[in-house]
Amino acid sequence: MVRIGGVTVTERSVGQNAQLALLLEVSGTPKPGNVDREREYDDLRFEHFMAGAVGARPGLDRAAAGDPIGPAFETAVEGMAGQSAGNTQFGALLILTPLVAAASGGRLSPSGMDAVVRETTVEDAAAFYRAFEHVDVAVDDPPDGLEPLDVRRGSNAIPVLRARDLTLFDVMAESADVDGVAAEWVSGFERVFEASERLLDGSGPVADRASDVFLELLAAEPDTFIVTRQDRETAEEVQRRAQAVLDGDEDATKLAEEFVERDINPGTTADLVAGGLFVALERGLEV
Amino acid sequence: MVRIGGVTVTERSVGQNAQLALLLEVSGTPKPGNVDREREYDDLRFEHFMAGAVGARPGLDRAAAGDPIGPAFETAVEGMAGQSAGNTQFGALLILTPLVAAASGGRLSPSGMDAVVRETTVEDAAAFYRAFEHVDVAVDDPPDGLEPLDVRRGSNAIPVLRARDLTLFDVMAESADVDGVAAEWVSGFERVFEASERLLDGSGPVADRASDVFLELLAAEPDTFIVTRQDRETAEEVQRRAQAVLDGDEDATKLAEEFVERDINPGTTADLVAGGLFVALERGLEV
Repeated sequence: MVRIGGVTVTERSVGQNAQLALLLEVSGTPKPGNVDREREYDDLRFEHFMAGAVGARPGLDRAAAGDPIGPAFETAVEGMAGQSAGNTQFGALLILTPLVAAASGGRLSPSGMDAVVRETTVEDAAAFYRAFEHVDVAVDDPPDGLEPLDVRRGSNAIPVLRARDLTLFDVMAESADVDGVAAEWVSGFERVFEASERLLDGSGPVADRASDVFLELLAAEPDTFIVTRQDRETAEEVQRRAQAVLDGDEDATKLAEEFVERDINPGTTADLVAGGLFVALERGLEV
Repeated sequence: MVRIGGVTVTERSVGQNAQLALLLEVSGTPKPGNVDREREYDDLRFEHFMAGAVGARPGLDRAAAGDPIGPAFETAVEGMAGQSAGNTQFGALLILTPLVAAASGGRLSPSGMDAVVRETTVEDAAAFYRAFEHVDVAVDDPPDGLEPLDVRRGSNAIPVLRARDLTLFDVMAESADVDGVAAEWVSGFERVFEASERLLDGSGPVADRASDVFLELLAAEPDTFIVTRQDRETAEEVQRRAQAVLDGDEDATKLAEEFVERDINPGTTADLVAGGLFVALERGLEV
């Protein structure tokens, strides 16, 4: 650390801040339905998120070094998958990889993010599809007419991407109305930057701020990972009950236990928190 | 991951395994008196250990790349200290750095460790003393006659090291009877390897195995960090009560709460667990 005019400036690299964001995200508790320090699923445990964050680092470092976003993301996912629980942080990495690229290029702002994601290429899209071969990710069936681009086809879909000249940005734009991570890609990472502001404005332990911001995001919009794994009705119930916690009408810890019991995991909201933590760390959030 | 004959072989680098060992160590719960997932001190929180593990990585990577142990350790400590709580993993890094050097040189065994630490130089000792300038570490007053080598003198002690031609191994040997980490340096890392065997022989979540092994180590010998911060009587009480937990006569969680309340932190035992986790990961422990 360096102290400049009374302000502590961390010397963490961009890749280190991204890794720390993954670790702090899962350290926040309670985050109803998510794996956190005090709650886990039998087959998706806290320790898997630790190993995922360690394994993802080389891919995050690739993005920080200026490598294209798609291949950097694929490397991050491949490394993340080096633990026995499978998908721990796929969505968080899809948020973090472009943020890391933007940060190391001095463009970490909504307009900078918009430029970064619009610069992605067909090769980035191809790498994104290959990433699905490293890990099972819960996804919906594609809309009618888009079956050839089902992500579950992995690299088999690449010829279609090439034939249609689809960049990674194009692919994300196709899903923006049904996927909360893709929605960030087409909106200048609006909710991520909003989350970062709240994290920076907060006080006290960072992990507590992360769980507060998680609840605020959860109450604001239905979590699309819940829509995918359960249904929209469940996602809307979760949204209402997160608001009830904020209003003091429900207890966060009890809700966390109920959601874990019902296997309701608001994973997309957690991905946004990871992104918000990264931006906040880059902007001086002290741990 | 690669599957060879049905066995999953992780592709994590040696530096990644060392970082993961730090993260898994603090993830184990309950570890009576230590910061863990469910207990922390106001000024020494779980999140500080996350940031410490992220910051320490470049130093661990230096050791893995074959850099001398002293400077690699100093780099690790400097990076670890890049969070607001000060000393989180100083002792764990003093255990891990030589283990990492040995592992990347294909010498991760008791006799290999003995060779690695005996190869340290006066310059390694100098870097070790400089490391104390990056962070406040709880240490005892030196024995009579060794005041010029008080680690709290930091780099001011370096001329004395040079004049007396003391290597880092020599420095550790001086403290081996009062410091559990130094004792590992002169014993071929006996307790670390023992811990790694128990971790590998165990079953279930790695974090649970880590807390079990922590209790076994705590019951076996007085924790020297407690001797330093409190006194030998307290360390012996802790040892007895850890045994009582193993015998089923005390509850681990209640004991954890009492120790945190009394600010009794068996930090040296945690350092040994971190070392044991690293060796176990290198030997195929799956997360």
